[in-house]
Amino acid sequence: MIVSGGELDYPKERFFIPTDMDHRKEQLKFMDMELWYTEKQTPHFGITAKISRTLHHEKTTFQKIDVIETEQFGRMLVLDGMVMITDRDEFVYHEMLTHVGMNTHRSPKRVLVVGGGDGGAIREVLKHPSVEKAVLCEIDGRVIEVSREYFPEIAGALGDSRVEIRVEDGIKHIEAHPGEYDLILVDSTEPVGPAVGLFQKPFYQGIFDALRTGGVMVAQTESPWFNRDLIAQVYRDISDIFPVTRLYTASIPTYPSGLWSFTLGSKGPDPLEVPPERLRVPDTRYYSPELHQALFQLPRFVKELMVQKER
Amino acid sequence: MIVSGGELDYPKERFFIPTDMDHRKEQLKFMDMELWYTEKQTPHFGITAKISRTLHHEKTTFQKIDVIETEQFGRMLVLDGMVMITDRDEFVYHEMLTHVGMNTHRSPKRVLVVGGGDGGAIREVLKHPSVEKAVLCEIDGRVIEVSREYFPEIAGALGDSRVEIRVEDGIKHIEAHPGEYDLILVDSTEPVGPAVGLFQKPFYQGIFDALRTGGVMVAQTESPWFNRDLIAQVYRDISDIFPVTRLYTASIPTYPSGLWSFTLGSKGPDPLEVPPERLRVPDTRYYSPELHQALFQLPRFVKELMVQKER
Repeated sequence: MIVSGGELDYPKERFFIPTDMDHRKEQLKFMDMELWYTEKQTPHFGITAKISRTLHHEKTTFQKIDVIETEQFGRMLVLDGMVMITDRDEFVYHEMLTHVGMNTHRSPKRVLVVGGGDGGAIREVLKHPSVEKAVLCEIDGRVIEVSREYFPEIAGALGDSRVEIRVEDGIKHIEAHPGEYDLILVDSTEPVGPAVGLFQKPFYQGIFDALRTGGVMVAQTESPWFNRDLIAQVYRDISDIFPVTRLYTASIPTYPSGLWSFTLGSKGPDPLEVPPERLRVPDTRYYSPELHQALFQLPRFVKELMVQKER
Repeated sequence: MIVSGGELDYPKERFFIPTDMDHRKEQLKFMDMELWYTEKQTPHFGITAKISRTLHHEKTTFQKIDVIETEQFGRMLVLDGMVMITDRDEFVYHEMLTHVGMNTHRSPKRVLVVGGGDGGAIREVLKHPSVEKAVLCEIDGRVIEVSREYFPEIAGALGDSRVEIRVEDGIKHIEAHPGEYDLILVDSTEPVGPAVGLFQKPFYQGIFDALRTGGVMVAQTESPWFNRDLIAQVYRDISDIFPVTRLYTASIPTYPSGLWSFTLGSKGPDPLEVPPERLRVPDTRYYSPELHQALFQLPRFVKELMVQKER
């Protein structure tokens, strides 16, 4: 638990508070008279970052929200003890969740982001001039408000006139909007708490139905080092439903193992077959057309996760 | 400092010992009555791993050597507080240091590994049937002996009849063997302590001179997130000396940021132009011919580190 308030006022001694989550524990403690935040990313491994300030703490209906300022990665948004975004490396996650799918679709006009209350995915979506409407469907409105306050450069895009914000359950939203979207991005937390359903097959079937002809989905699907069963399961589920399924990865240092996976499902267009001249790249620091084409050549230990059922 | 001995016998309280290195600090401490090892990879960020046993600790003429057993990554070899190899992810580092260069050279017969006392790079080198002689030049003989004892599956290849082990300074070895090698791999620790000279331009000039016609070098060159100036400097230095210079990366979760870079210099062959049928792949878990060809398409924030001097 991260104690709220701008000024730190902890006892100058070992400080350790386990939380109610049993697979991960957050800790805030003094090491050598400095304050450090440790995220146990697995029961046996984690990252630790020096904190200069604690900016925000609250417990909402859905989760705990913390904002801390670290020296290495700038501000960090932490949900239920898991790092969601940081100032320094959020560009990788948001670009890679968004542009691969945007460029796979011929001309995405209506885009849905499920989760992603920080606004980073929406910011990237809006860089594509084809977009007429971008819907953000976030279950926890407080994530949106906290992000607007502490991450204005990320959440600022939420004020764009093309954006519609819906504070509601993504699963229900998708059920209620069949055949409505060209692209759906699943920008979820990890598969605990409110996000569990976002990693299950009925949700992917719902996405399929909510997509128009030629529609594309991309979901964040965790670490190829630590979440191998989950990636393999999601790949199987999506390839059962969509005619085209592709897996790719990106380097995100504050996420478990530093390597993150994304799974793309498509009703038609294949990201491997987009002509180079159609790979639009608006102002990115990670994604590029050359990278798009190289992205699907995966290391062997990742490639072996892509096993489809016999059809 | 990691205390030696097979059985742990620490006081059941917060345990923190800063070392004589000022940019990194090792720590061994109890969290929630478990023993955890923390490596500060930068002054403000690190990884932390649960330890089941401490297997070895010593201080040699050159550095401190520790072997610990972690639940997440198996055994870890730690030099001067920095994780060098672990059972679970060493395959990435060793395959990617070795096979890209081996396959770039038309038929490497004589190979030198500078550093790499654990034997992992030699193990990969020996998978190529063209190799007649593989020289390991490691400055600290104790690294070799400790690796043989605690990492037999990695160091086992050092017993091969094609291997010559030289316990000496790599810089001096290279000076004394002009025009002798087809491939030279720089498998160094990070640029502190005994490895500082292995990141400097005169060393790369020495490597150039120690290579035969068509020779190739590959060096591990740290993290594109945390060591940007170093990567840019090494790239400039190598491209001043070698006609072909290439940068590529790989995912290594126990190394700082989880993303690691390698810089290749070549007197002739270009890794981008190797015909696919010449890309030999002996028994790997990360490297593949398809990956070889995709590897040089880097994320933009990495690509921008490749700046050559005007010629």
